[in-house]
Amino acid sequence: MTDVTSSGPPTTKHRPIKVVLDAMGGDHAPANEVLGALMVAQQLGSDVEIILVGKEEVIQPILSKQKAVTSIKVVNATDVIGMGDEPSTIVKSRRESSLYIGLDLLRTNQADAFVSAGNTGGVMATATLLCGRIPGVSRPTIGSFFPTKTGRPTLLLDVGANVDSKPKFLSDYSVMGSVYARLMLGIDSPTVGLLNVGEEEGKGTEVAREAHQLLRANGVNFVGNVEGRDILSGTVDIVVCDGFEGNIILKFAESILGFLKDRFRAYADRGIIQKLLIGAFRPVLKSALRDMDYQEYGGVPLLGIQGVAIIGHGSSSPLAIANMIQRAVEMVRKDVNGTIQKTLSSTPSSIKESV
Amino acid sequence: MTDVTSSGPPTTKHRPIKVVLDAMGGDHAPANEVLGALMVAQQLGSDVEIILVGKEEVIQPILSKQKAVTSIKVVNATDVIGMGDEPSTIVKSRRESSLYIGLDLLRTNQADAFVSAGNTGGVMATATLLCGRIPGVSRPTIGSFFPTKTGRPTLLLDVGANVDSKPKFLSDYSVMGSVYARLMLGIDSPTVGLLNVGEEEGKGTEVAREAHQLLRANGVNFVGNVEGRDILSGTVDIVVCDGFEGNIILKFAESILGFLKDRFRAYADRGIIQKLLIGAFRPVLKSALRDMDYQEYGGVPLLGIQGVAIIGHGSSSPLAIANMIQRAVEMVRKDVNGTIQKTLSSTPSSIKESV
Repeated sequence: MTDVTSSGPPTTKHRPIKVVLDAMGGDHAPANEVLGALMVAQQLGSDVEIILVGKEEVIQPILSKQKAVTSIKVVNATDVIGMGDEPSTIVKSRRESSLYIGLDLLRTNQADAFVSAGNTGGVMATATLLCGRIPGVSRPTIGSFFPTKTGRPTLLLDVGANVDSKPKFLSDYSVMGSVYARLMLGIDSPTVGLLNVGEEEGKGTEVAREAHQLLRANGVNFVGNVEGRDILSGTVDIVVCDGFEGNIILKFAESILGFLKDRFRAYADRGIIQKLLIGAFRPVLKSALRDMDYQEYGGVPLLGIQGVAIIGHGSSSPLAIANMIQRAVEMVRKDVNGTIQKTLSSTPSSIKESV
Repeated sequence: MTDVTSSGPPTTKHRPIKVVLDAMGGDHAPANEVLGALMVAQQLGSDVEIILVGKEEVIQPILSKQKAVTSIKVVNATDVIGMGDEPSTIVKSRRESSLYIGLDLLRTNQADAFVSAGNTGGVMATATLLCGRIPGVSRPTIGSFFPTKTGRPTLLLDVGANVDSKPKFLSDYSVMGSVYARLMLGIDSPTVGLLNVGEEEGKGTEVAREAHQLLRANGVNFVGNVEGRDILSGTVDIVVCDGFEGNIILKFAESILGFLKDRFRAYADRGIIQKLLIGAFRPVLKSALRDMDYQEYGGVPLLGIQGVAIIGHGSSSPLAIANMIQRAVEMVRKDVNGTIQKTLSSTPSSIKESV
C-alpha cells in the first residue's frame, strides 16, 4: 500500500545548477569562454550559476564591458595549463591552475559540472584522480561523434587514449555510451557495435573476442562486430573500441578535411578556370562537408567520473562554449551519472567480476 | 686474389620470368584477368611467361577471340574461391581451386610470382602455409598505400589483419616495408613511423612501447611515433602498426569516398541550382579525389613469403591486372625477397631473439 501523503522530501524551489567553466582552457581563452558564459547565462537565467575559474585580472575587464549578469561568478586561478602540458603533472604540481581549481570545486560539490576547452588529457587524468569513478565503472571514457550517411551521428568510444583496455572496460564503455545516447540524444534503444576486423564472432584480438562475449550479456543492444567502414555508414549508434584504435581513427578522421582542402587548392592552382570552379564550389563544399569537422559537435562528455565534465575543442567559439555549458546542465538534470551507476549495478555479476 | 676467368656460372640467356595469374579471382573474372594478361604479354614479350590458372572451358573462348600470344599458358582448375569463403578451409578442402593450384605452382618453383584479384585473406593464409616464410621473417604482412598531401603515398602495414602482433612482428614489417619502398618505389632511405597515440617515446600500448625500442635498433630509418593524422599528411614513407588498427583504418578510409558522394548527392537533391552545381563540379571532384580510392594503386604485395605474391582489389580492371603482373615481374627482377632475407639476417641478434 502506498502512502501518498507523507513520503519524499518537501517540495522546495530547486537550487540553481552550478557549472564551473575553465575560463583559461581554449585557444581563444578567456575571451571566447567569457562570451560563451554570457550567452548561456542570459538564456538560462537564475536556474544556472556559472563559475568562471581563471586569471581574474584578465576575466574581469572582459566581463565589465558587458551588461552585468548576476548568475556569473569569478574564482581566481593564477596558473594556466597549456595544450602541450603533461597531464600527469597537474595534480602534483599545478594546483593553482584553472583546470585543477575548477575540478576541485567539482570534487567538493561546490559545483555540479565542469566544462573546459583545454587540455583533454589533462582534464581526463585530473578529473579521474580528483573526483573518482562512479561505483561500478572500471575506467572512465571519452567519446567522439562521427557524421554518418544516415544523418544520425555515431558515438565512438573510447577515443581518450585508454590504451590496452581490458574486455570489462569495453563493456563499461558500451553501457555508459548507451545511457548517454538514450538520455541525451533521445535514442530509445541505441545499437552498439564492437569495432573489429570482421563481422564473425571469433574475429580480432584476444581482447576483442572476450569483449564480444561480455557485450552479448551486459544488457546493451549489442548487434555484433562492426568494421572500420561502419563508422561513417551509421550502422550502429555506438561503436566501442580500445582508446588506442579510437584515438588513431579520430586523428585520422580529423585530418581528412585538411587533406581535401589541400587537394582542392592544388586543383585550383592548375589554372584560372579551375580556380573559378573551385571558388564557385566553395560554399557547396562547406555545406556538404560541415559536419566532417568534429568541432561542429561541440563538446564531448567524459563519462564515468563522479560529477559531470564536458571537454571541448581548443578552438571552440563562444557559441560552442555556450552549447557545452547547456549540455552539462542537461546531463545534471537528466541524471546521466546516476543512471550509469544503476545500470552497471544491475549487470550480471559474471561481467562485474571479469576485470 | 680474384680469378676473373673461371668463377661464376656461364653466361646464358636468362629464362623468362613465370607469373601465375589466378584467372578466377576478381569480380569480373576471368574476362578482366585474361584481357590484362594479354595486355602485358604483348608489352613484355618473351621475357615473361604468364600462366592463367582457372576454368579452361571459360578461359579458352576468351583467349581464342584475341590474337594468339605464345607467352600465355593455361592450367585448368575446376574450383573457384569466392570472396566470402573462409581462408582457413582452402588448404584443407579446396585444392582444385585456381587459388590453391596457382600458389602450389609458386611453391614448387614452377612459377616465380603469383597474382590474384581474389580473396585477400585466402591468398595470405594459403600462401603462408604453402610457400612458407622467408628465413628471419616472423610474420608475413600485407600493406596498403594511402594518398598524402605531398603526393608521395604512405605505405601502411600491416593491414592484413595480423592481429595481436608482437613487437618483433612490427619490427619485421618495418624492414620489409623499407626494402620494398627502396627497391620498388625508388626511395633512397625511406622514413618509418610507428602508429601511436602520441609522439613521445613512452606512449601507447605495451606492444607499441616495446616495438618503439626495436625500431630504434633494427636499422630502418625510424623517425619515431606518428599519429593518425600523419598518414594522410605524408610525414613518413612507411607507417607500421598491428593489423587490427591497420585493417580498421583501411576500411574506414575506403568508406570516405562513398560517404562524400552521398553528401554531395544529398546536396544536389536540395534543388535544381544545387543539382547543376554538383553536376558541373563532378569532374573536379573526380580529379581531386581520385587517389582517395585505393583501387587506383593497383595491387599490393604480400611481403615475407617465399615467392612473390601480389594481391589486387576484386574489381580490378584489365589495366590494373596488367599493372599487377608488371609489378610482380619487377619484384622478381629486383630480388625484393632476397634483399629482405639479407637485411633481416644482419639485424642485431637482440632483435632476432625478441619474439
